[in-house]
Amino acid sequence: MQFESDTRSRILSTARDLFHRRSYADVGIKEICDLAKVQKGSFYHFFPSKQDLASTVIDDMADDWAHGFVAEAFDQELPPLERLDYMVDAAYFWQKAAKDLEGRMPGCLFGNLALEISTRDDVLRAKLTSVFEKASEKFFETLEEAVTLGVMAPLDTAATATAMLAFLEGVILLAKTRNDPEVVRILGPAVQTIRIELPSPH
Amino acid sequence: MQFESDTRSRILSTARDLFHRRSYADVGIKEICDLAKVQKGSFYHFFPSKQDLASTVIDDMADDWAHGFVAEAFDQELPPLERLDYMVDAAYFWQKAAKDLEGRMPGCLFGNLALEISTRDDVLRAKLTSVFEKASEKFFETLEEAVTLGVMAPLDTAATATAMLAFLEGVILLAKTRNDPEVVRILGPAVQTIRIELPSPH
Repeated sequence: MQFESDTRSRILSTARDLFHRRSYADVGIKEICDLAKVQKGSFYHFFPSKQDLASTVIDDMADDWAHGFVAEAFDQELPPLERLDYMVDAAYFWQKAAKDLEGRMPGCLFGNLALEISTRDDVLRAKLTSVFEKASEKFFETLEEAVTLGVMAPLDTAATATAMLAFLEGVILLAKTRNDPEVVRILGPAVQTIRIELPSPH
Repeated sequence: MQFESDTRSRILSTARDLFHRRSYADVGIKEICDLAKVQKGSFYHFFPSKQDLASTVIDDMADDWAHGFVAEAFDQELPPLERLDYMVDAAYFWQKAAKDLEGRMPGCLFGNLALEISTRDDVLRAKLTSVFEKASEKFFETLEEAVTLGVMAPLDTAATATAMLAFLEGVILLAKTRNDPEVVRILGPAVQTIRIELPSPH
């Protein structure tokens, strides 16, 4: 069991790293097996298809993300608006660290996969939609709390939460295109200015 | 010459359509030649490599885009803030038309390619950076005019322009993930709320 689970986790971490640094289509099962030092038969024992693998990579990354810097950024002990700043800082430092190490800013694995596979794979697309919905929920709770505390004027918290997530994905997209994490540091804080008003009562 | 130019433009429009609907890596030269009814030798006469082809596709799309709905949206006859609304509407209607036709929202070709190839192809990355810079310039001119006319309080027009472009790319990213152009219609107008202030004079 120990050996099985080691093999599976080697495949997973290798695939996650390669998908993130390159793309889904660009990375083949053979390359993953070679780098993870796993036989193809063993690969298919754990992952019947590349789609299964990608689906597990998304879950795995979302889980790390939710328990890692997203949990830290959206710490209920922090004042709500500071959580948004923390989220931007975390995205910046993470991208900067990756670039310092690899010379390349990898961007957001979820955003990368979403644009690459959404027109062609509804299983992975549904999984990514759910990851984005969970992220959007964190912004939503933060905005609800900010409005309740009176540090933010009432607004359409659900729509604004999704718009804030969209903004961060877009900022990371432009930063990756320029291969420059500073774009995240400079533009990211404007996430706080985005507002979608409540529908007029009339 | 007529025949040569027909062949080249058939290759280009086929490649552009396939890259946009699927991805760069997912589409091979053989498939493009088959669909465009072109021999491989003829393909390589016009495009020495797939990278050359993609580079020309980006130029071609940027050119259509600049003379098409971007020119309409950023029409100097329109009041500046209406140009931003027009741009959001144009993105929405374009994505909706594509989805109605194909069942799939293709997203922004430039954003798609940027996330797919930026870590691996500096030639295409530089080309995409330049496309985004030109788009950002349109927002910049619009904001400068809005500030001059007094319909917008002074702000860091250059940074805000780039942030607005990032926001639209991010909104299209989330909309493509949900395969739902309505996301663009609902979130897009919040582009007007994004502000990056001028550095404090102190």
